[in-house]
Amino acid sequence: MIAHKGKGNVMSERVDEVVAGGGLLHRRALLGFAAAVGAAGTARAAESVGQGSPASMLKPGRGFETYGQPSDWEKPIVKSVAAGAGRPGTGVSRTPLHRLEGTITPSGLHFERHHNGIPDIDPAKHELLIHGLVERPLVFTREILARYPMETRVHFVECAGNTGGNAGLGGLTGDVTSLYGLLSNSEWTGVPLKILLDEAGVKKEARWVLAEGADPVGMSRSVPIAICLDDAMVALYQNGEALRPANGYPMRLLLPGCQGNANVKWLRRLKAVPTPVNTKDETSKYSLLLPDGRAEEFHLELGPKSAILKPSPGLTMQGAGLYEISGLAWSGGGKIRKVEVSADGGRSWAQAALTGPVQSKAATRFRMPWRWDGSPAVILSRATDEKGEVQPTRNAWLAKYAPGQGYHYNAIQSWAVAANGTVTNVYL
Amino acid sequence: MIAHKGKGNVMSERVDEVVAGGGLLHRRALLGFAAAVGAAGTARAAESVGQGSPASMLKPGRGFETYGQPSDWEKPIVKSVAAGAGRPGTGVSRTPLHRLEGTITPSGLHFERHHNGIPDIDPAKHELLIHGLVERPLVFTREILARYPMETRVHFVECAGNTGGNAGLGGLTGDVTSLYGLLSNSEWTGVPLKILLDEAGVKKEARWVLAEGADPVGMSRSVPIAICLDDAMVALYQNGEALRPANGYPMRLLLPGCQGNANVKWLRRLKAVPTPVNTKDETSKYSLLLPDGRAEEFHLELGPKSAILKPSPGLTMQGAGLYEISGLAWSGGGKIRKVEVSADGGRSWAQAALTGPVQSKAATRFRMPWRWDGSPAVILSRATDEKGEVQPTRNAWLAKYAPGQGYHYNAIQSWAVAANGTVTNVYL
Repeated sequence: MIAHKGKGNVMSERVDEVVAGGGLLHRRALLGFAAAVGAAGTARAAESVGQGSPASMLKPGRGFETYGQPSDWEKPIVKSVAAGAGRPGTGVSRTPLHRLEGTITPSGLHFERHHNGIPDIDPAKHELLIHGLVERPLVFTREILARYPMETRVHFVECAGNTGGNAGLGGLTGDVTSLYGLLSNSEWTGVPLKILLDEAGVKKEARWVLAEGADPVGMSRSVPIAICLDDAMVALYQNGEALRPANGYPMRLLLPGCQGNANVKWLRRLKAVPTPVNTKDETSKYSLLLPDGRAEEFHLELGPKSAILKPSPGLTMQGAGLYEISGLAWSGGGKIRKVEVSADGGRSWAQAALTGPVQSKAATRFRMPWRWDGSPAVILSRATDEKGEVQPTRNAWLAKYAPGQGYHYNAIQSWAVAANGTVTNVYL
Repeated sequence: MIAHKGKGNVMSERVDEVVAGGGLLHRRALLGFAAAVGAAGTARAAESVGQGSPASMLKPGRGFETYGQPSDWEKPIVKSVAAGAGRPGTGVSRTPLHRLEGTITPSGLHFERHHNGIPDIDPAKHELLIHGLVERPLVFTREILARYPMETRVHFVECAGNTGGNAGLGGLTGDVTSLYGLLSNSEWTGVPLKILLDEAGVKKEARWVLAEGADPVGMSRSVPIAICLDDAMVALYQNGEALRPANGYPMRLLLPGCQGNANVKWLRRLKAVPTPVNTKDETSKYSLLLPDGRAEEFHLELGPKSAILKPSPGLTMQGAGLYEISGLAWSGGGKIRKVEVSADGGRSWAQAALTGPVQSKAATRFRMPWRWDGSPAVILSRATDEKGEVQPTRNAWLAKYAPGQGYHYNAIQSWAVAANGTVTNVYL
């Protein structure tokens, strides 16, 4: 452990507790030690006190809201929409992750991927049919499901194509929204799918379930029965209230840790079948070509992944000094076991703090103190999940697949911090 | 343990596993046992399959949203506003807890208590001053705080007056919104207050901190220094995004587990002082008169509390059969250790399942299977926190205080279920 003096702070005799190269510090530097925080040199000394009231105290405020909205000052913080030309409901909108904090994605900012827009569904008329290889085909309405036992769990949903562009040739430009914005994290409440399938009496020869949405394209995916009988749910609530229309109102399939597309929205039908159906939505997309020419199909589980969000492209550092590096880590394999951070281009690593509850298949916030000396640096994060799976390097990921693939890209992300504080996407 | 046969279900030979009187069942009744769920008799057999597509599949859907909103079909689910006549910014709005699920309160539905409306504050101009008995008076802006270490935690906020009406003479009418709606639960992210106070260098003689808001009435409360140095934070984010204006944008004091009013919104000033200041906001309100004529002042910690939300006044039972009883429990004393439920007016009790992570000073969801036989019943819930504190009966609570008190009312709630399925508030 190398120790060096803090500089420019009110108690400059204090010694930083360095945990890795490039200025990564022990978390003790930030919690409970005023000296290190003072070293940030950011809080302004109050020269005089009580020189009058701010404008907000000089007139009555607004009245009450029946359904509140963000401040007008936060209006620039919205999703970035990329829809096909002339096809307003086909494309994606992305979550501005670097402008958010904590772990929950506000429902209004949850990413979207639609194939022909958001259908308007009267919840009183919507029906979910369970049929195929079952003893008793059944129909469930939302009112009926309201009597069933529910579970509440926090889970991420991520599009299989999120960050796939990083598998390409050059360092992509753009901010975190464009690079990582197809990831969101919510508290979901719904009925465990196992209960509904058990009630219908799934036959032994049913090894897959076809899930179909009530959107105009009837988006459909085949899901192994083992996943349906594990932690899958028919979700009715998102972050405490009814699902948002863009997230499958009035009900969606939730397959924790599986690629986003398989979490079928506006769920209308589950058919127990002996083999995968090979729908249009899973033959043209969501398979990965291997180097030997074969294809990896029905690879649903998303691997461990992480990204530093603070700082990141779009957020500029404000000069040398003490900062908190912070970001999100997630894995379809279960809980995040650890996140390591490097501030010297991967030569040395230190373990970040995981603040808040660490939940299975949920976005987890990591934090790490960093004293930046103001010179160019490359910062990285590397997640390990409870199965022991570790985020691969970009080269290791590329070696697994044929050229030109991008789904399930989960390699370690590198950000270059320039001396002027700007942050860009680089490939190591 | 009394066992009786399920009735009217497809596998009626199955035997219920009863855990308490009035039809409370072991959780196994609901998880993994198709027979008991079938006994709800609610899912409809699908007579024919695939008779055409619903309307939502016959036309393109809507395009993307930059900031999404609830479905138009959910418009009736809003807060209930009770503002003083002619004083649009003075009063409360209440959360419709019985129309929500899970644990997070959507930010748009977080309850409000304002004393002169919601101020409009430019975050770039807002300053937080820490002064008084400190070595170094300091000023913090939001931009400065963005560099500080943050924590993310889920905590409830509850008005000290929530459910206080139940201390009155008769059984209050109205739904859960009007009875319990001054409670909400969010994921908060911010800077631990201890870090900021340490940086300012709080002097030994400072035993209290005066917190003042930037609203037109300068709402102010005195908080013991021990609470400020424990788990208090200056919160900047709520459920992943910047605080909503009604919740203190751009920054608020968060005192987990303390009465809502002390969690000063639009926080502009923290002054370290030797004794409580006795501001107008804490002398005229928020003290409890004791039977001997003395007053209990600065009683900030909220006791253990719970309520069954499903069913509850405003939600009518749909005939005899299997249901899930579900509700929320919370305590200012820490984690909820257990919630017991009774379906026979308190003669027998059974322990409910706590689903999801059980977090300190956070609303916790409990669930319990109940086979209602269709006859009148009185259902109750009773929370115990990790300190071992148990929700008192109404009579025990009333005996502690002088007549006419209502703050910090946390007694056991009783709901009467009539044979026709309606649910009303009753006093046992």
